[in-house]
Amino acid sequence: MNQVPIYEQERVDDLLTQELHIIQSDEVFSFSMDAVLLARFAPVPKYGKILDLCTGNGVIPLLLSTRTEAEIEGIEIQPRLADMARRSVEMNGLSQRIQIREGDLRELVKVTGHGVYDAITVNPPYMPVTTGEVKLNAHQAIARHEIHCSLEEVAAAAMRLIRPGGKVSMVHKPQRLGEIITVLRQYRLEPKVIRFVHPRAGSEANMVLIEALRDGKPDLRVLPPLIVYNENGEYCEEIMNIYYGPKEGRV
Amino acid sequence: MNQVPIYEQERVDDLLTQELHIIQSDEVFSFSMDAVLLARFAPVPKYGKILDLCTGNGVIPLLLSTRTEAEIEGIEIQPRLADMARRSVEMNGLSQRIQIREGDLRELVKVTGHGVYDAITVNPPYMPVTTGEVKLNAHQAIARHEIHCSLEEVAAAAMRLIRPGGKVSMVHKPQRLGEIITVLRQYRLEPKVIRFVHPRAGSEANMVLIEALRDGKPDLRVLPPLIVYNENGEYCEEIMNIYYGPKEGRV
Repeated sequence: MNQVPIYEQERVDDLLTQELHIIQSDEVFSFSMDAVLLARFAPVPKYGKILDLCTGNGVIPLLLSTRTEAEIEGIEIQPRLADMARRSVEMNGLSQRIQIREGDLRELVKVTGHGVYDAITVNPPYMPVTTGEVKLNAHQAIARHEIHCSLEEVAAAAMRLIRPGGKVSMVHKPQRLGEIITVLRQYRLEPKVIRFVHPRAGSEANMVLIEALRDGKPDLRVLPPLIVYNENGEYCEEIMNIYYGPKEGRV
Repeated sequence: MNQVPIYEQERVDDLLTQELHIIQSDEVFSFSMDAVLLARFAPVPKYGKILDLCTGNGVIPLLLSTRTEAEIEGIEIQPRLADMARRSVEMNGLSQRIQIREGDLRELVKVTGHGVYDAITVNPPYMPVTTGEVKLNAHQAIARHEIHCSLEEVAAAAMRLIRPGGKVSMVHKPQRLGEIITVLRQYRLEPKVIRFVHPRAGSEANMVLIEALRDGKPDLRVLPPLIVYNENGEYCEEIMNIYYGPKEGRV
């Protein structure tokens, strides 16, 4: 591990894979299971260029780096989080493979040009600006609410940035699936694979993983449900494998 | 059971509920699990008016009659099937409660007027006209392919016929879920509840049940997966209850 500055209220967590570590902060940003599942669900090319939108503290680029030799970029609008992500990349000695941009995903195409990425991942803010928790600080509010980018702006940016035939993978809340599917298709990102995550076998889904294909034809596969906890309240085997097993396959 | 004509190649099957029976024919039309699940998934008002589009041999109106006191109508474009459905209704002594119309669902609003139904069910043809099996006879082809009505025409008809705030329930193939959600929302039928049916716990979904609310706000629930067979190849408990148990609750 390279030495990097760690600031007050920050901690270094183990990513449980290939000795990767990540800088986190409960005050600013710490990842959750959503990011871990997306990083294993997303199809990634062996080589080429991958972009992670709304990258936060860079958890998805770090996790993807164990599955591919591709160049990975992350873009994050909050300077504080982009800085955390850059330090984590440096700490893990991955600066040659992962680049973190501080910026607005709505403007990125002006810098990169159209259709330059082979795969895009995104764990966007889940909630519209008008709803929900009021006790968040600004960092948390921006990560969870559509303050700087709406679902539609995410889809519009992804469509411009992904190459024709490239794949865009997203994790989101099932509550918004109707809007998600409408907006993705509106931007020629055809949903091809969906997997729902249920806390327990008899519970409603609380996460949805979606893979969309730029300019794809309508033909959707709904994978077996991913169940998090078994009847004893322990992680199911598949979740244990995702966290602690080899990182090759895709969930 | 009332006496009604039964023609060659037809048989009378037991619907396993309240001594209901149904006229079927492998040559013309016989229902499958899709219809049984939709008839239990669809929310139905206790009183009022329910319409079943693409009613086939009337299996859904017959099954719904055990869950509600509402008037139930079915519409079917194929004269041979509409006649089978009418004879089944008569056979079960339900002519006062179930009315079968022979006609084109695209034209129905001209007869009934707008927004006259409290709930609508539909098990539409699953496949576009261009794909699939070529060895079907005309009856089977019309029931399975979008020869007389496309998904969009089904949604357009349902939107005109359902009252504001009424619910439209559909069973379909997950492969077409992207199109289904887009088209329903285009016709102001907002998906509110979805349940996927998986043949086994580790298999992809092969059926999807959808409840949409006319003029509803986006807020979707994805129910626990409905698994058909257990590890021993037997029906799971929930399926056994749907077929053989009391018919009150909704799946």
